[in-house]
Amino acid sequence: MAVRALWQCDRDGKMFTSKKDADAHDQMLELAEAISNAVNENVPGLNETQLDDIGRLIARNKDLFAKAFKGKSAELSKLDFAEPVDEIEDKLTQDNIAKFDKAKIG
Amino acid sequence: MAVRALWQCDRDGKMFTSKKDADAHDQMLELAEAISNAVNENVPGLNETQLDDIGRLIARNKDLFAKAFKGKSAELSKLDFAEPVDEIEDKLTQDNIAKFDKAKIG
Repeated sequence: MAVRALWQCDRDGKMFTSKKDADAHDQMLELAEAISNAVNENVPGLNETQLDDIGRLIARNKDLFAKAFKGKSAELSKLDFAEPVDEIEDKLTQDNIAKFDKAKIG
Repeated sequence: MAVRALWQCDRDGKMFTSKKDADAHDQMLELAEAISNAVNENVPGLNETQLDDIGRLIARNKDLFAKAFKGKSAELSKLDFAEPVDEIEDKLTQDNIAKFDKAKIG
């Protein structure tokens, strides 16, 4: 049986087959968290889901926001909040791993 | 009686004694509006005030957000949403002008 390395992001447990992707995901979540906290401290009345969504929306699309900051605000109409496809694919990997872990413990 | 030029931002009617400040304010509001729209389209359940506040919070602090995008997310803890002092001062000018307009019409 072959074995392979997997990289897990401890912020949300997600698994990646490459360390680079795992690091990028972890940094995105760290940025998202900082944005959620900043919005939470300055804009009253938002619930946790809304704060998380706002943080991730901006963190995931930071390149578009950076362009908008430089005067191209129309760039923000291209914003996409759908989960990137590879994340869904990674979820499948995650499910397989969960089953794998269960089988090992069983 | 001396006369002086005032620059009015048509997005919110605010007055400025310098065109440069008026332009900067107008661009900030344009960016804030684009951000509010982007958040509104992607994060459900926010009311108009919250959307406006989020847009202005980010637009006013875009330099801090740009630093956070480059990996310094701690910069966002320095975020300040208090209205800049000169805006309050400008509001006083605005009130004087409103009275001035009324006197002219009266």
